[in-house]
Amino acid sequence: MRFITYRTAEGEGVGIAADGGYRGRPVQVLGRDLKGALHDGQALAALGRELAGAPLLDMDDIELLAPIPRPDKIICVGLNYADHSAESGFEVPTYPTVFARFASSLVGHGAAMVRPAASDLFDYEGELVAVIGKGGRHIGRAQALDHVAGYSLFNDGSVRDFQIRTPQWTMGKAFDGTGAFGPELVTPDELPEGCKGLTLTVRLNGEVMQCASTDDLIFGIADLVATLSEAMTLAPGDVIVTGTPGGVGAMRKPPVWLKPGDICTVEMDRIGTLSNPVRQEAVPV
Amino acid sequence: MRFITYRTAEGEGVGIAADGGYRGRPVQVLGRDLKGALHDGQALAALGRELAGAPLLDMDDIELLAPIPRPDKIICVGLNYADHSAESGFEVPTYPTVFARFASSLVGHGAAMVRPAASDLFDYEGELVAVIGKGGRHIGRAQALDHVAGYSLFNDGSVRDFQIRTPQWTMGKAFDGTGAFGPELVTPDELPEGCKGLTLTVRLNGEVMQCASTDDLIFGIADLVATLSEAMTLAPGDVIVTGTPGGVGAMRKPPVWLKPGDICTVEMDRIGTLSNPVRQEAVPV
Repeated sequence: MRFITYRTAEGEGVGIAADGGYRGRPVQVLGRDLKGALHDGQALAALGRELAGAPLLDMDDIELLAPIPRPDKIICVGLNYADHSAESGFEVPTYPTVFARFASSLVGHGAAMVRPAASDLFDYEGELVAVIGKGGRHIGRAQALDHVAGYSLFNDGSVRDFQIRTPQWTMGKAFDGTGAFGPELVTPDELPEGCKGLTLTVRLNGEVMQCASTDDLIFGIADLVATLSEAMTLAPGDVIVTGTPGGVGAMRKPPVWLKPGDICTVEMDRIGTLSNPVRQEAVPV
Repeated sequence: MRFITYRTAEGEGVGIAADGGYRGRPVQVLGRDLKGALHDGQALAALGRELAGAPLLDMDDIELLAPIPRPDKIICVGLNYADHSAESGFEVPTYPTVFARFASSLVGHGAAMVRPAASDLFDYEGELVAVIGKGGRHIGRAQALDHVAGYSLFNDGSVRDFQIRTPQWTMGKAFDGTGAFGPELVTPDELPEGCKGLTLTVRLNGEVMQCASTDDLIFGIADLVATLSEAMTLAPGDVIVTGTPGGVGAMRKPPVWLKPGDICTVEMDRIGTLSNPVRQEAVPV
């Protein structure tokens, strides 16, 4: 199943890919949003069946949101591909480097990623996302993938000067409209186990900027779920943004920065393509 | 006004300090939680009036929660007192060092802070908290305090080996039950402007471990609201944890670690006292 979350003038809705488009219903009619159906596979399957009988959506009438617009946690893993660790001047980590994003930074597929008024040093980072289904703490590695409700894509847009202005990267990842997430939440039955062997490709205005296999993740999906849950209770809808491979704009010579009018796409075979134009934040008055 | 959030067998409630105790009602009866009344001063005053007519709570029947149990953002500021920056080996910052906590790490006043099975290096950090009322982006410094709904206290419990295991501190701040927040949300009219001139005192089993004036904050409340909102839209209930002064356990010679049975208190005149026992996490089977 491939789920979307969308917004219309009437409010938020949830849809499912069907018949070459999406069928969907308002959250108010469904009585739950997508996050509210992730806690077990039967609840998600029931939502899928209900949506399969819903009206086809007119894509001109809807705005895609992040599949989970308001996760309890957005857990980002840095330095999780050896080539990106190296280009960033860090050693290959032996434990996941974790930072957080706030939901206020999220945009969906097709929405503009916003270069802020405060900085021109705006960069892309294509990433695979795992979304937690059944929650838990101290989840063993062998059971970890049973706790993943689905996968999606992320463009972990980064304001590089703010990211390195202090020892902690959070401010560089916190600007409104800089984190693109989507387009769909794809359930694991549609994908190889743990999303292994899939190719991540990031294109800027059509040119390939990042390309890597998920086999090159230092900490794979099961590792991350197990390790994170050693510390914290993972909850349905928690988002694990798994890290970006080499090729980010900041480390190119000369550097490449996202500019208004650019189109940046994050693609993974069998998951889809997350595409976002870049626009300039209106200068605050 | 001094608000609490609490839990009973029937669910969550909101209370107000009155008549030497608290008067309160269930969220289900109120139709909103505390966060839902923070967006403007009139809504918060209306909640206060409604609660002033509510029944007195029997403190034996309620468990205090964090005043805002599920903030959209928990924005923590590190290195925000010169003495703590120095003891931690960092230069005095010229821009706030920001990291995030997850709501899953929060506990209220009186609840146990949990030393995790994974580490014995569990440390206290007493801090002043500002909670956002009216949201906004690009909030000017002169208007910043108008966006603060109230103040509270925090014990930013830190698992030090996990905090420094990677370049990012997040994992050391992410363990369940390590961040104590409360006891009350105190509205600004009860306090000096911007909480200036108040003394923060942290005691471990009665012994003073940290003591500083909020005048020593490198970035004060108005600075933080203005600077953070340059990047992100602040929303009602967002929590700004403003940083800890010198005297943390890890930097003492010899180091002092929180142990099961300890009592750690964070006190600030006119705001109150946040007190938490320490317990050991049950070893997972």
